[in-house]
Amino acid sequence: MRIDDSNVIYLDHNATTPVAPEVVEAMMPYLRSEFGNPSSDHVFGRRARQALDEARASVASLIGAEPDEVIFTSGGTEANNLAIRGSASAAPSTRDRIVTSTVEHPATSAPLALLGASGWRLTRVPVAGSGVLDLDAGLDALGDDVALVTVMLAQNETGAVMPVAALATAARAHGAIVHTDAAQAVGKIPVSVDDLGVDLLSIAGHKCYGPKGIGALYVRRGTPLSPLVVGASQEGGLRPGTENVAGIVGLGVAARLAMDYLEREPARVGRLRDKLFLALSSRIDGMVRYTPDDDCLANTLLVSFPGVIGAEILDQIPNLAASTGSACHAGEHLPNATLLAMGVAPQVALGAVRLSLGRATTSEDIDASVELLVGSYEALVAATPSRSVSHKSEGAPR
Amino acid sequence: MRIDDSNVIYLDHNATTPVAPEVVEAMMPYLRSEFGNPSSDHVFGRRARQALDEARASVASLIGAEPDEVIFTSGGTEANNLAIRGSASAAPSTRDRIVTSTVEHPATSAPLALLGASGWRLTRVPVAGSGVLDLDAGLDALGDDVALVTVMLAQNETGAVMPVAALATAARAHGAIVHTDAAQAVGKIPVSVDDLGVDLLSIAGHKCYGPKGIGALYVRRGTPLSPLVVGASQEGGLRPGTENVAGIVGLGVAARLAMDYLEREPARVGRLRDKLFLALSSRIDGMVRYTPDDDCLANTLLVSFPGVIGAEILDQIPNLAASTGSACHAGEHLPNATLLAMGVAPQVALGAVRLSLGRATTSEDIDASVELLVGSYEALVAATPSRSVSHKSEGAPR
Repeated sequence: MRIDDSNVIYLDHNATTPVAPEVVEAMMPYLRSEFGNPSSDHVFGRRARQALDEARASVASLIGAEPDEVIFTSGGTEANNLAIRGSASAAPSTRDRIVTSTVEHPATSAPLALLGASGWRLTRVPVAGSGVLDLDAGLDALGDDVALVTVMLAQNETGAVMPVAALATAARAHGAIVHTDAAQAVGKIPVSVDDLGVDLLSIAGHKCYGPKGIGALYVRRGTPLSPLVVGASQEGGLRPGTENVAGIVGLGVAARLAMDYLEREPARVGRLRDKLFLALSSRIDGMVRYTPDDDCLANTLLVSFPGVIGAEILDQIPNLAASTGSACHAGEHLPNATLLAMGVAPQVALGAVRLSLGRATTSEDIDASVELLVGSYEALVAATPSRSVSHKSEGAPR
Repeated sequence: MRIDDSNVIYLDHNATTPVAPEVVEAMMPYLRSEFGNPSSDHVFGRRARQALDEARASVASLIGAEPDEVIFTSGGTEANNLAIRGSASAAPSTRDRIVTSTVEHPATSAPLALLGASGWRLTRVPVAGSGVLDLDAGLDALGDDVALVTVMLAQNETGAVMPVAALATAARAHGAIVHTDAAQAVGKIPVSVDDLGVDLLSIAGHKCYGPKGIGALYVRRGTPLSPLVVGASQEGGLRPGTENVAGIVGLGVAARLAMDYLEREPARVGRLRDKLFLALSSRIDGMVRYTPDDDCLANTLLVSFPGVIGAEILDQIPNLAASTGSACHAGEHLPNATLLAMGVAPQVALGAVRLSLGRATTSEDIDASVELLVGSYEALVAATPSRSVSHKSEGAPR
């Protein structure tokens, strides 16, 4: 279907954000005249190195770190791989267990599965009904055999903010290294590596108004870590390869913008999110909210529409860009995996729609989204009066 | 030293190239309005996916591959790591040896060293005096115990083009997988994966007028390969993580431009390179050329200035941006490592300067470079009439 973009409301900021105009402007010189290789010992190289230094300082400042504790990567997935596999590889042989949660992103769960297949024991701590990590279970899971604790800071589907600080304090007392995937948190809530007490923290540029293809890993000084990619000596040997200078400059500016944003914007977005939920829930009986009331990102609303399939709701309203958090294989919709991990019944999880707001979201966008979503829901229900959700739904035409 | 850029002649294209203006223009929409996540099932996501498809087809076309044989990575270093470690990891246990050359880039030699430390046997084939791989030695090194042959297509320092096709034919007859690091070759010479007979081939965007932070690995259909980074299902699971859409679009356009360039430009650049060497060698007694006369990149000239240190020559002429291929540690210059591997004496290798031309290089640039280089050389010699090169030179002021 051909869509006029100007009519599309974008409520999928947890999938990716637009790049802030200031970020693009800052990148431009490094795509044009400032093309030097930072390893080169001439004026072009020196200026590229200087740009890296400035960006590194900005990213460090956003999370309360020192510049030399920031390693640039190609994104959040690589940062998580480096953190998890790199610290496991460098761990003492007396520690053979890793503690994580049941609701991690594949960028965390996949490297953990790889380690599991090579002999590491994995303890997956469940989340409570609210979607927030069960802290007591997390504390119980710790022990002196634990090499690494890796729990995400904010959950991409529900927006739940996890009690990483409390878990980290206890984990470090046991001598474990603590990593958190902060891809969804950075730029949305204040993030301080010291307040969190983490040793490793992953950042994804494209989740916080920076470009795609760039990310960072915070590595606390003294943290044992083996590189994932090997080669020349860039990034202190922890991440070789000619640096993505323009992307790094963009991430630096995104970090500076995020500091400014955090001082004023989350409250505004939170009011819009709450307005969205109130309007939807007042018009749709049986709608369930899976975003926690407290301990959550202000921009995220994960709901389930009763008796329908979330993907079918969205298929009918292409002017609203949002997500279901579910995969579709061979025409068959699969339930939202995070909700399944939370113990939600598959039929209910199939009705999930994730609405994630951003800096440009307006009150008018919310009003229009409510009408689109309610209209689509009512049309679906009307079309199938005796509708019962099936695992084998053929799905709406695409 | 503060330099007016407009006066700087850039002869360091093997370190990195400028980004072609057409590449930057093509990237811009994907840094602005077309910000969708290719995994998203809405209009923004679909258009981003479409952009990836087009870029993949362009890159495939440049090297004579099918689009589904192209995997995008964060650059040449990651592509080499994926190719080498990914194919070693997927190799049958009956094969425990890897054949390579003595003059590979660290992006190849470092992953090989890692494999060597984990039990793989490595056979490093030397290069002849010309800098070109000794093909007879390469053929002798093959055997049915070889899992992988990895030899670069063009050498970054000397510009030597290696006999990859002849080696690959024999290697595949032995049942080995063949990889070539083509980072320096793509865009400079015609590259066809079928003519070369390789299974894996690495590309770096920033060496061929594309952006930094993007690369590609060609993977012939059916080649066993394990992923380096694991996560979600992007790039067929071989390279997960949200795609660098703008970078990929840029690489696609760079590939299309390269096809056009290859039809007309290498001869022009080759003439300028030859003019540069003739002028330098006619004015400097004892200058040695390490770029082969045949089997070489047209843009590359690696020479050694007799009795001086290459880095000191360049330090005196900041208006010429070039490279020595040597590292400098604690004020001490180390000889060009590729030349050492070729058996060149350290004192001679210290005099190396690499001059690598590009699409924008003019005849006037060459004339001016000759004057700068000869002037700097003569000033160095005049300042130290009884000069003898020392390994412990303190180096020129920086």
